[in-house]
Amino acid sequence: MSEWLVYHNGKLVPDADAKVHYSDSGLMFGVIVTESTRTFAHTPFKLREHINRLFRSMKATRIDPRMGTDEMERITLEVWEANRHNLGPNDDAWIVHNVTGGKMLVTIGGWEFGEPTVLINCAPIDFTAFGSFYNSGVHAITPSARQIPPQCLDPKIKHRNRLHFNLAEYQVKAVDPYGFSLLLDINGNLAENKGANFFVVTGGALRTPTPHSVLAGVSRQTVLELAEGLGIPTVEQDLQLYDVETADEAFFTSTPYCLLPATRINGVTIGDGLPGPVSRRLLAAWSEMVGLDIVKQADLHLQTEAMSE
Amino acid sequence: MSEWLVYHNGKLVPDADAKVHYSDSGLMFGVIVTESTRTFAHTPFKLREHINRLFRSMKATRIDPRMGTDEMERITLEVWEANRHNLGPNDDAWIVHNVTGGKMLVTIGGWEFGEPTVLINCAPIDFTAFGSFYNSGVHAITPSARQIPPQCLDPKIKHRNRLHFNLAEYQVKAVDPYGFSLLLDINGNLAENKGANFFVVTGGALRTPTPHSVLAGVSRQTVLELAEGLGIPTVEQDLQLYDVETADEAFFTSTPYCLLPATRINGVTIGDGLPGPVSRRLLAAWSEMVGLDIVKQADLHLQTEAMSE
Amino acid sequence: MSEWLVYHNGKLVPDADAKVHYSDSGLMFGVIVTESTRTFAHTPFKLREHINRLFRSMKATRIDPRMGTDEMERITLEVWEANRHNLGPNDDAWIVHNVTGGKMLVTIGGWEFGEPTVLINCAPIDFTAFGSFYNSGVHAITPSARQIPPQCLDPKIKHRNRLHFNLAEYQVKAVDPYGFSLLLDINGNLAENKGANFFVVTGGALRTPTPHSVLAGVSRQTVLELAEGLGIPTVEQDLQLYDVETADEAFFTSTPYCLLPATRINGVTIGDGLPGPVSRRLLAAWSEMVGLDIVKQADLHLQTEAMSE
Amino acid sequence: MSEWLVYHNGKLVPDADAKVHYSDSGLMFGVIVTESTRTFAHTPFKLREHINRLFRSMKATRIDPRMGTDEMERITLEVWEANRHNLGPNDDAWIVHNVTGGKMLVTIGGWEFGEPTVLINCAPIDFTAFGSFYNSGVHAITPSARQIPPQCLDPKIKHRNRLHFNLAEYQVKAVDPYGFSLLLDINGNLAENKGANFFVVTGGALRTPTPHSVLAGVSRQTVLELAEGLGIPTVEQDLQLYDVETADEAFFTSTPYCLLPATRINGVTIGDGLPGPVSRRLLAAWSEMVGLDIVKQADLHLQTEAMSE
Amino acid sequence: MSEWLVYHNGKLVPDADAKVHYSDSGLMFGVIVTESTRTFAHTPFKLREHINRLFRSMKATRIDPRMGTDEMERITLEVWEANRHNLGPNDDAWIVHNVTGGKMLVTIGGWEFGEPTVLINCAPIDFTAFGSFYNSGVHAITPSARQIPPQCLDPKIKHRNRLHFNLAEYQVKAVDPYGFSLLLDINGNLAENKGANFFVVTGGALRTPTPHSVLAGVSRQTVLELAEGLGIPTVEQDLQLYDVETADEAFFTSTPYCLLPATRINGVTIGDGLPGPVSRRLLAAWSEMVGLDIVKQADLHLQTEAMSE
Amino acid sequence: MSEWLVYHNGKLVPDADAKVHYSDSGLMFGVIVTESTRTFAHTPFKLREHINRLFRSMKATRIDPRMGTDEMERITLEVWEANRHNLGPNDDAWIVHNVTGGKMLVTIGGWEFGEPTVLINCAPIDFTAFGSFYNSGVHAITPSARQIPPQCLDPKIKHRNRLHFNLAEYQVKAVDPYGFSLLLDINGNLAENKGANFFVVTGGALRTPTPHSVLAGVSRQTVLELAEGLGIPTVEQDLQLYDVETADEAFFTSTPYCLLPATRINGVTIGDGLPGPVSRRLLAAWSEMVGLDIVKQADLHLQTEAMSE
Repeated sequence: MSEWLVYHNGKLVPDADAKVHYSDSGLMFGVIVTESTRTFAHTPFKLREHINRLFRSMKATRIDPRMGTDEMERITLEVWEANRHNLGPNDDAWIVHNVTGGKMLVTIGGWEFGEPTVLINCAPIDFTAFGSFYNSGVHAITPSARQIPPQCLDPKIKHRNRLHFNLAEYQVKAVDPYGFSLLLDINGNLAENKGANFFVVTGGALRTPTPHSVLAGVSRQTVLELAEGLGIPTVEQDLQLYDVETADEAFFTSTPYCLLPATRINGVTIGDGLPGPVSRRLLAAWSEMVGLDIVKQADLHLQTEAMSE
Repeated sequence: MSEWLVYHNGKLVPDADAKVHYSDSGLMFGVIVTESTRTFAHTPFKLREHINRLFRSMKATRIDPRMGTDEMERITLEVWEANRHNLGPNDDAWIVHNVTGGKMLVTIGGWEFGEPTVLINCAPIDFTAFGSFYNSGVHAITPSARQIPPQCLDPKIKHRNRLHFNLAEYQVKAVDPYGFSLLLDINGNLAENKGANFFVVTGGALRTPTPHSVLAGVSRQTVLELAEGLGIPTVEQDLQLYDVETADEAFFTSTPYCLLPATRINGVTIGDGLPGPVSRRLLAAWSEMVGLDIVKQADLHLQTEAMSE
Repeated sequence: MSEWLVYHNGKLVPDADAKVHYSDSGLMFGVIVTESTRTFAHTPFKLREHINRLFRSMKATRIDPRMGTDEMERITLEVWEANRHNLGPNDDAWIVHNVTGGKMLVTIGGWEFGEPTVLINCAPIDFTAFGSFYNSGVHAITPSARQIPPQCLDPKIKHRNRLHFNLAEYQVKAVDPYGFSLLLDINGNLAENKGANFFVVTGGALRTPTPHSVLAGVSRQTVLELAEGLGIPTVEQDLQLYDVETADEAFFTSTPYCLLPATRINGVTIGDGLPGPVSRRLLAAWSEMVGLDIVKQADLHLQTEAMSE
Repeated sequence: MSEWLVYHNGKLVPDADAKVHYSDSGLMFGVIVTESTRTFAHTPFKLREHINRLFRSMKATRIDPRMGTDEMERITLEVWEANRHNLGPNDDAWIVHNVTGGKMLVTIGGWEFGEPTVLINCAPIDFTAFGSFYNSGVHAITPSARQIPPQCLDPKIKHRNRLHFNLAEYQVKAVDPYGFSLLLDINGNLAENKGANFFVVTGGALRTPTPHSVLAGVSRQTVLELAEGLGIPTVEQDLQLYDVETADEAFFTSTPYCLLPATRINGVTIGDGLPGPVSRRLLAAWSEMVGLDIVKQADLHLQTEAMSE
Repeated sequence: MSEWLVYHNGKLVPDADAKVHYSDSGLMFGVIVTESTRTFAHTPFKLREHINRLFRSMKATRIDPRMGTDEMERITLEVWEANRHNLGPNDDAWIVHNVTGGKMLVTIGGWEFGEPTVLINCAPIDFTAFGSFYNSGVHAITPSARQIPPQCLDPKIKHRNRLHFNLAEYQVKAVDPYGFSLLLDINGNLAENKGANFFVVTGGALRTPTPHSVLAGVSRQTVLELAEGLGIPTVEQDLQLYDVETADEAFFTSTPYCLLPATRINGVTIGDGLPGPVSRRLLAAWSEMVGLDIVKQADLHLQTEAMSE
Repeated sequence: MSEWLVYHNGKLVPDADAKVHYSDSGLMFGVIVTESTRTFAHTPFKLREHINRLFRSMKATRIDPRMGTDEMERITLEVWEANRHNLGPNDDAWIVHNVTGGKMLVTIGGWEFGEPTVLINCAPIDFTAFGSFYNSGVHAITPSARQIPPQCLDPKIKHRNRLHFNLAEYQVKAVDPYGFSLLLDINGNLAENKGANFFVVTGGALRTPTPHSVLAGVSRQTVLELAEGLGIPTVEQDLQLYDVETADEAFFTSTPYCLLPATRINGVTIGDGLPGPVSRRLLAAWSEMVGLDIVKQADLHLQTEAMSE
């Protein structure tokens, strides 16, 4: 692990040395935005889209990164090149950006700004954390806590003020230690998982919540594009628990796993309780697009892990 | 500045060395709670109340500090003793606790917990940041962003997921660079400032928002107790902007300044535009309680600063 | 069981014969209100209060019972007398009223009313269903579903449109098969259990939700009165999950068990995890009032059951 | 009337004998779902769609019918065949399913399930209850009570917890004894009638509320399909009272009458106060689809009734 | 009628000549606040309280009257003296203030202010409009429209943006041409009548909505004070329709009639359907305070009217 | 100015004489609806659409104008012809309708209606009030006050109950004396300006709020039609502040200026801070449609003004 290098405000440092002072506004005031890009066969996927969204998050939070998107992309690729040798042939990695407001001096009667803190790190994807769910499907669970409404803090900003997600997770894990949270918004509509978007399949069509109370995920967007290519109709609308309970299929989308079928919701079987044909077609199309069998990659990791036990 | 020492997980380290790894759950997931206690004439004020609230925050966020309130108090006083020599006779300090979930490993299909990160630091109170407001009063301004509702993340937990407060502050400072935010909740009731509670005085009685969408501040509680001692009636109820605009007096309460009169709301003069008699009586009673003239202490700092310019 | 008699529209019939036609408005349109009174040592407790509330429920639902409160009380006592011989000396019973709108003919363009359906039945209280909780305390769990707001259907009417409670119960039992639901209202405030009110004890004072989104329970009222007699302060106010998580004690109140301590909330220990002194004082005062040791009665039933296994 | 037979848990019984015990969970806990299918010229219309929705309602309420959709359809048709001889040539019938949770034993600390109660009954449609409205149009009235929001109990489940509809009906009938309720949701958007969906026609296009707070009616779906065939644009969106007051036409859709024009809203004339051309075209297309003149059938019944007076 | 004089920006003019230009901001932008004071036996009642509230309304709407409360009171009394001769011995009058923003020039990119428009007029109270209701009680009706929430426009400002009240009135009059509106707020709590506050009497105590979504009426305040004098407990809290339906008594309070019993709510009888003892005691105490039998005064007017027919 | 004539209930009177009695329901009860039509090169633009919307507003407010749309159009054109000579060749005018409920007699126990007050006036457009914004763009600012929700008073009715807009304007002008308000609705979605609709341009597509909480503006509709002609995709959906902060372009639409680019939102630059290509294309297409260069016309006025200083 010691060979992983982290970009920290202009320098590459060993991962263990990438620390921020406790007074950093990221820690003190939650002024921190982020992106996670993954690689497929060691090639970053939609890196530019992630960087563009990072800059939208920074604009909405008034963080000035002191560089443009081109420079951010160039640096990111340098960080990636400095770390990719750590991966084996079947491995892939996250490339994670974190940018804080730095030494923002928020006093009682005013404030001043210093340099932002820019961190870019890479880490191998742990396929064993989710690989088995491609076949079994995951268990979606709605906690009683609600997603923060956009009039308070917009979930379209990809930030790290995630305490509410963390507290919701306790309620979810109390039901099923491998459960996936599915938060509702304050009107009771489906919102999102702590790090993933959600889709249902009903009568052959994809339905997913509007971008009102959710992150406009890159994986979500990828699924919408793949569906268009496959001739699968898609609708963005307000959805409720009933729509999941009576769906034919459902799935989460997120950067590390792309798409994971959800086969139970609050203990109720979704469809026939198995990953469905639409989910499988989308995963196949995604695999084809990135030139790598997404499920197979995870399976190989699971086999390796099983042998090593 | 180099003599200030910070408690960091069992050790006292120089302030500049008190850093956390970027992967700490305080930074990555917003799992961080906090308290700020101030001293009066170098004596910590209501330290035990602050520590008790810290433990309530930790309980509600499932952070296990691996120590009890007695030990936390003992360590805190040790940190204070190690730093108090940095203060001049007219100085006083904050004593600040920050506790994060530490190396919480939140994976896609599970999570594990490590040791929490416990930080206790001290810093001199910058009286010049607010001292002039005791006489002029501050300008309260309601931004368009709303306080996060308790069904999403309870403001009674004193945490550091404060990005929404920070964004609101931009709207406030656009009106008045020295303005104080006064957030409304999603029903349009008065909530709180980013770090302070709010009171209005109407017909001789104190009125302050219920604890629904605000921190149950220690200073707020102190004012309620002082008012009782002075025979001033107090009411906790839902309040709206109208109640501020038509109040006789209004004020903010917070640890560093105790009580600051608010003499304008969104550009409208409150009462006669000057700090009022009830505010002054409360400040006088508070000063008497702590054996130190709160306003005078700030004035002396302002004079010192003026001379040094 | 065959000796229990049920009052059904003027007649006493064996329990098994107490049936309603499928077209009854209680079944077809949810036009059904109810009350449950219990006995202590074979004496009905606050029967008149229950009957008064039944008449308030009927008034609010426009059910005309074709009799007054006096006659309802007289009939109820006759039903009770006809059934009490079924009880052993340590037994006690529920006396349950159900009144439906009867053969209400709701057509597309109008409606007509017939005679209401009045049912009064008795049943022995199954103390083994809750007796062990006096010592262990129960586990309160907040489901993601919310209490129906009073602007849609007022929970102060004691009716049997309880499908939402039933669905919430599935979420609760998924966490803990013996868990007790604690529903929030649509603003995220604590509301009630499917058949019980809820209290927290904080700093020696009782706090319970306002009657906004909850039934104004007879047991809730009894606790408020007992607390007054014991000099325990009581407050009705909006409460949130934080208030339970950080309470010293908490308990449910309901007709069959009077008061059951809650010692966990969503997996978090409340106070020290044991029934607390205020709960015990209230149970003792209640026992004294009714001349019967409430906890002991349940314990005897648990012992009898244990021996019979 | 004595010849009508009702299916009750495996048996055909005379209508008068189809009774449920008062302790059935349908009555005690509102655990009851339903469907109403009508016949056209003695042929059931979209029976399979109704049965599919019944199974969705059962899935969402966790009622296990102990049979599949095929068996339910087979039994339903048997019930229908056993009753159709009761109809005259110009008559048609409802075929109504009611399924309850049966003897669900919900105790304080747990619950157990027994066999569900399955009831299927037929009844002749009373065309005189609505027949005159095809020509006069109905009067839509918005009561002050609001539709229950889906986060509490989803109206997409076709259940019988309808007390709130019943109470709303009193407000409606106070304005006009033949008025039709049109409930708003808690945001003030148009929702639905107690048993019908609602459409407005504006500038030649059909507009109807989204499925958020309404039943996704089979008749509603039929209208959307007929409109598509006729080249009439359709939109599902949030609508408000203004949209009805300023519409060119409006109508209700429901199983017994298919489509009834609404020509007044809260006393205000809609359009020119007469059933409009789009409503008439849709009724004509529906009649053609089912091979029966829907309006004429009702007219004949009205004439028969008039003669018999 | 020609002898009534109106104060209009410094002059007394005949009522018919008191006109404002169509471009006045009162008409164009709704910038108009108001007060209505009544006389008892030709003596203005609580004039200063009304003027104080008028100034609070002006402060909250940023209207600068160019005079203080003393001058406003002096002018008001002059207007009153100039008009009182129009009254007969059993007559009394309203004294009505209307103040608009005057020729406020609101352009697209800015605005300028001119002189406000100040109008003070008197008019005889038409006792026949409400006199019979002291004995019969009024019929309270809840329209489907909701009170405007204070976060949009605070009802504590006594302004004349009353279109929503007017539209609600149509719904009310459709039920009963003499019905009194009782608006709910957007949470379904009781708010107020278009010009009156509302109280219920339950178990001997007065309950009235909190000042959240209602005008803090001078008559409402008078009732609270009279109740205190009579030893009647009073509570300000959120109330719902159920509380009216199950109340012992209910009443409206407003300047012209002081207190009018409400004996029906949405067609349901309140209490025994007659004005109750608490209402009568309050009216008697009010009469005593003002030295005039309030009910008798109205009765005499009704008799005079009856004779003149 | 003295030559401008105003239509007032059947007569043309000099502008200064167009006054309404203070008791007019437009002033007393806010019963007043309005339209503003502008001319391009002295030709009224979409006059019939404006008159149709005026009649929809009157229908929704139950104002009976005692004339039809044809007569209203004819009279309007007569008023226009009587005033157009006041304009210079580069001038254009507003034609403004105001219709009130007239002498509506709203008594306590009833009401009566008299003749409505119909006012039609013309006024020259002051191009200098906004002309410079075509090049600089305007600064959009979100006040803390919220748009009135349609369940209280529907913004689709074009009325003059605008006190809330006026109060919001104070908050906006405190940030920037030339700022444009952009109100949010009570859910935090973008609503509208006090007299304008709002659009964002993202990735080449136009997005604008749904008609839920905004006026369905004629200019808004014109932009949607022009966009269709230009092949620019358009979406009506719920939008939030984030969508403005991260937009490529944004603009307001309103009758006098047609379309004004917004280049800042709450101090944040939108896109590159300059009017964007989509805004310019739409303005060009609009100019072409009306045969007049909209920006040039304003520029000429600015030049004339500059010369005259």
